[in-house]
Amino acid sequence: MKLELHPDRLFPAEPGTRAVARELYAQVARLPILSPHGHTDPAWFATNAFFENPAQLLIVPDHYVLRMLYSQGVPLEALGIARIDGGPSEADPRKIWRCFAEHYYLFRGTPSRLWLDWVFAEVFGLDRIPDARNADAQFDQMQAALRSEAFRPRALFERFGIEVLATTEGALDSLANHHLIRSSGWRGRVISTYRPDAVVDPQGEDFVHNLQRFGELTGEDISSWEGYLRAHQCRRAYFRAAGATATDHGHPSATTADLSPPEARALYARILSGRYGASDADVFRGQVLTEMARMSLEDGMVLQLHPGVHRSHNVPLLRRFGRDKGGDIPLATEYVRALQPLLNLYGTDPRLTFIVFTLDEDAYSRELAPLAGHYPALRLGPPWWFHDSPEGMRRFRERVTETAGFYNTVGFNDDTRAFLSIPARHDVARRMDCGFLARLVAEHRLGESEAQELAQALSYGLAKAAYRL
Amino acid sequence: MKLELHPDRLFPAEPGTRAVARELYAQVARLPILSPHGHTDPAWFATNAFFENPAQLLIVPDHYVLRMLYSQGVPLEALGIARIDGGPSEADPRKIWRCFAEHYYLFRGTPSRLWLDWVFAEVFGLDRIPDARNADAQFDQMQAALRSEAFRPRALFERFGIEVLATTEGALDSLANHHLIRSSGWRGRVISTYRPDAVVDPQGEDFVHNLQRFGELTGEDISSWEGYLRAHQCRRAYFRAAGATATDHGHPSATTADLSPPEARALYARILSGRYGASDADVFRGQVLTEMARMSLEDGMVLQLHPGVHRSHNVPLLRRFGRDKGGDIPLATEYVRALQPLLNLYGTDPRLTFIVFTLDEDAYSRELAPLAGHYPALRLGPPWWFHDSPEGMRRFRERVTETAGFYNTVGFNDDTRAFLSIPARHDVARRMDCGFLARLVAEHRLGESEAQELAQALSYGLAKAAYRL
Amino acid sequence: MKLELHPDRLFPAEPGTRAVARELYAQVARLPILSPHGHTDPAWFATNAFFENPAQLLIVPDHYVLRMLYSQGVPLEALGIARIDGGPSEADPRKIWRCFAEHYYLFRGTPSRLWLDWVFAEVFGLDRIPDARNADAQFDQMQAALRSEAFRPRALFERFGIEVLATTEGALDSLANHHLIRSSGWRGRVISTYRPDAVVDPQGEDFVHNLQRFGELTGEDISSWEGYLRAHQCRRAYFRAAGATATDHGHPSATTADLSPPEARALYARILSGRYGASDADVFRGQVLTEMARMSLEDGMVLQLHPGVHRSHNVPLLRRFGRDKGGDIPLATEYVRALQPLLNLYGTDPRLTFIVFTLDEDAYSRELAPLAGHYPALRLGPPWWFHDSPEGMRRFRERVTETAGFYNTVGFNDDTRAFLSIPARHDVARRMDCGFLARLVAEHRLGESEAQELAQALSYGLAKAAYRL
Repeated sequence: MKLELHPDRLFPAEPGTRAVARELYAQVARLPILSPHGHTDPAWFATNAFFENPAQLLIVPDHYVLRMLYSQGVPLEALGIARIDGGPSEADPRKIWRCFAEHYYLFRGTPSRLWLDWVFAEVFGLDRIPDARNADAQFDQMQAALRSEAFRPRALFERFGIEVLATTEGALDSLANHHLIRSSGWRGRVISTYRPDAVVDPQGEDFVHNLQRFGELTGEDISSWEGYLRAHQCRRAYFRAAGATATDHGHPSATTADLSPPEARALYARILSGRYGASDADVFRGQVLTEMARMSLEDGMVLQLHPGVHRSHNVPLLRRFGRDKGGDIPLATEYVRALQPLLNLYGTDPRLTFIVFTLDEDAYSRELAPLAGHYPALRLGPPWWFHDSPEGMRRFRERVTETAGFYNTVGFNDDTRAFLSIPARHDVARRMDCGFLARLVAEHRLGESEAQELAQALSYGLAKAAYRL
Repeated sequence: MKLELHPDRLFPAEPGTRAVARELYAQVARLPILSPHGHTDPAWFATNAFFENPAQLLIVPDHYVLRMLYSQGVPLEALGIARIDGGPSEADPRKIWRCFAEHYYLFRGTPSRLWLDWVFAEVFGLDRIPDARNADAQFDQMQAALRSEAFRPRALFERFGIEVLATTEGALDSLANHHLIRSSGWRGRVISTYRPDAVVDPQGEDFVHNLQRFGELTGEDISSWEGYLRAHQCRRAYFRAAGATATDHGHPSATTADLSPPEARALYARILSGRYGASDADVFRGQVLTEMARMSLEDGMVLQLHPGVHRSHNVPLLRRFGRDKGGDIPLATEYVRALQPLLNLYGTDPRLTFIVFTLDEDAYSRELAPLAGHYPALRLGPPWWFHDSPEGMRRFRERVTETAGFYNTVGFNDDTRAFLSIPARHDVARRMDCGFLARLVAEHRLGESEAQELAQALSYGLAKAAYRL
Repeated sequence: MKLELHPDRLFPAEPGTRAVARELYAQVARLPILSPHGHTDPAWFATNAFFENPAQLLIVPDHYVLRMLYSQGVPLEALGIARIDGGPSEADPRKIWRCFAEHYYLFRGTPSRLWLDWVFAEVFGLDRIPDARNADAQFDQMQAALRSEAFRPRALFERFGIEVLATTEGALDSLANHHLIRSSGWRGRVISTYRPDAVVDPQGEDFVHNLQRFGELTGEDISSWEGYLRAHQCRRAYFRAAGATATDHGHPSATTADLSPPEARALYARILSGRYGASDADVFRGQVLTEMARMSLEDGMVLQLHPGVHRSHNVPLLRRFGRDKGGDIPLATEYVRALQPLLNLYGTDPRLTFIVFTLDEDAYSRELAPLAGHYPALRLGPPWWFHDSPEGMRRFRERVTETAGFYNTVGFNDDTRAFLSIPARHDVARRMDCGFLARLVAEHRLGESEAQELAQALSYGLAKAAYRL
């Protein structure tokens, strides 16, 4: 089947509305890309080495792809995912690609299809939708491309028109790749994000060991609550020096806390002792989040919260292949009571920007838009993960705008490790936002020049301001 | 920028559907306004004094406006909100207006923008969208208008085509303004609504003091449960005599209760003693609600429940400025188990009309439409507060109609203290309902003459019947 | 008013999109009907007797109709529902029909209206919308039709183009009607479904008595957990022999459990003793569900779960008329933690197909699509009950497809005892799916030939595969 990217894709079908969407889009389509939250590997830009092959680049690391194929009975071994027990797993990238191509029809109606079609057509110049028959030829064509200078990471970064790309590193990361990028003389702006989950979540793997390294790395005495907080301050400064403008926190709930110093000390002691309950762990993460907000007042780092995921729901899969293989499932997430302690302390402070995300769309109109439409420090992150999709974006704007407006949102995050799809993801967001604005114009709820201003803001300006880029 | 109210605003963009919407709307646009639930100040109609100035009329009392400006960093002091500690706050209405005008772009995409545009264009004849440059001139123009006879409250009431306007008063209110209105000879119909929260919610401010006054006012012994109930009956009769056809109850949850008399007595005693827990307070409010339903069987007053708000979420703001300043946030609200006690007692009684509202849209299709599509006494109130908006109305009809039909809903409530925007709010509702009906017609799910009947019912007939006006 | 079924009904109004929908629909409109889950009475097809009269056929057994009329004050007695106390109830089908016809306008905007219009127009050839004036004539016309050979159950079955029709029987059912159908030589395929709720739910009526009969029927010792499980295996084999390909389970929650054999034995003993709590009952049902999944690995029966209903919410109504009279209300339902035990055991086993339904639409995008987009055994059932409606179907596709794709869904279930409306229900689903696909095509998110393949799959292929028909 022919692979085509229609110029009107994702615009509303009604011709009058579509005409407005087209005009709005024309003015933002080529704006530089701001990617203030994502998971690409900084080593790519540090070493600028060739990408290995299409399978390792496009399939093996993409948990959206893995989950869909797995859900339809494709074993992860066939997709080249390494087994923890060292058992056999497909090593031939061509065979992995074939398996993917045979099953590509499964992605009909999903955002993965939109992103991948763009990568195939725009980045690699493929002209057929992948299937069993064209798999080998397409693999060869892509493999050849990946050996060309134009497909090195930095060349693609420039071709994609990326102005800033933020990666995400743990508190213990040396940021060596970021230092290499900076010292290389290359002018691409790749910055880090401070994501200290591994030294914040007592229920995470290796927490105790991580804390120890945290202490060693910072020279702080992490056996005391005050020392632990100083260690964070130290690492934040380190990240900040390497360009980071934000911290990020992935917690099971949106809990925040406002403990008195003695309470916090006592809780930290319980956590260190290992004799704590699930609720202690929840409050501890919440207290650290509040401390992060407090530190943000001083160092200006933007605070991001990504709550509400049941990680590794499929325990047998976790044991066989490890984390991040498509088995994470969202949970109902409460924000109103959970965020109150932090917001009552710092929610009105002009120095803080606190960006909250959700996988629970029910919270959009009931909790998050009302909160963001009130607290000066609070902003809503764009539709995340399962909702980073055309319908997800449409629901977000429809449910959020009337209460929080546009200016309490922060533009788009691609949040991806799939580097080649970054422009496609931003393009989907720009198209959907222009389509939403076009509907408001067509229904005479917004003037056309206002819509133009907003299209610019949603595509570029709001992210630049919110993330202090 | 030019300020225009397009005649097709809010109608679906698809031309065939829009044509149907236009025709339906033409037949209901000029129907009288029934406003059976709102918060205007009866003193306006009692004294018929000039409104003071544009800022005090349109900005200072509008919590939608306050919350949006506050969320973007405008201090409430700059908007003229009085501080509890007597600290400085802007007193010059012109400066307040300027601040508002400079930030008016923030309301793009919100219902406030629709309502205010209508007020500016239709009521005041402004022809530019407020901004920093036109602020002074527009302020002067409006100020001049407010000094003219045509802008006195009663003149506007008549110009707006209001048939009935219900205000909301507490159980302790003397209804002096309502008596003045009635004795004045003016023919505008302004009625009260019995809202006894201050003598029902043990956790409210001044509850004990209010109870005392409740007893004094009614001559009942409020130290006994029976006396407390008689005091309610007494005040209901008083409100009824002043035209009220409904009671209204704003509770944190939708809890209702069916306690035996001894249980109710014991609970009331605990409440009076001050030695009760949060759950006691919840059950107490729920039991009073059930008693209100029982009294409605006798006196015919319609029972309204507005549950599920976390009032004054921003505690520092509450301490600085007091209640109702835009810091209220919705909560997830359960209805199925909560309403069962009351519905099992009185839900089938033809004498009762029980109108339930929600800020939790998730309950529409899961809980409220199934309940209202079954219990004869139960009706669904229109989209409320944060959901009194075009998208909120669309979601309401889409999620409710298929299970509860149209006839288990009660038309529109403006629920506002922003008197000048009342016609705009009803107009938005009529346009959205006509647009929804037009879609059903365009998709051949409803005949055109049926849609005409329904447009009339949704704009006028259902409210008249449900509220017994 | 004229009764017309417009050929474009339910298609999107935008002409370009509608043209695509029309084309897609033309290719699936006449596909055979697979009805893999429903509640028709197998006696109809066993005896092939005439249906009694329009009221007994179309009104008395339809809980959608009962609930709506009841909600607007029509007593169930007037609709011919028998009272448990033997009190008077309308016995004249003509009068019942009249009452219905007078109130038919209440169904505007509901799916009942779509289904019934189809039955009136297509099955009976009526040409006016039922109302008070035409009630008698229409009653006569339908009554006459019901006395003709063409209106016997088997003739209608064939006229409707039904390829397979699954009924639902309890574990204690003799399946006599199914045996009669098979031995009659008639070639219509009517199969049963194993629905053992009455011997699984300790909180159900007559549980102890049912268990006893379960033991007698199977010759197993149901005083032991192992005997109880063997009894299930025995009955599953019996149902399987009579054509059943699936089991079905209606539980208050989605709980599943993974108890060790000693824990399961102890729990079963507690259940038998009658000394158990609500949580025991919940876990017991959940453990049996897990056992059902295990048995499915062996006998290949598809496992269906229909959770989350508060049955007989209106207790006075239950006491007066019994169950299933329109007083069931959905509950918020949690799936992520609830299904984990079963999914971690068998969710990856290629022998299992586990189809989950919901009445809580919030779970679509947050929980169910992510789960079904990951676990190979899990599939999502179509929109159920209150959501078996145009808007319900639209929400289902919009919220589910982007995460779970189309191929983790299972086509349509009519789930009805209203035999005459079965083609109408499938027609609504096919039209809505074609409309949804047409939008994706019109927005260039899907190719037209892909949409054609999908329309076939959603109308026929997916149900055939998922239910192993």
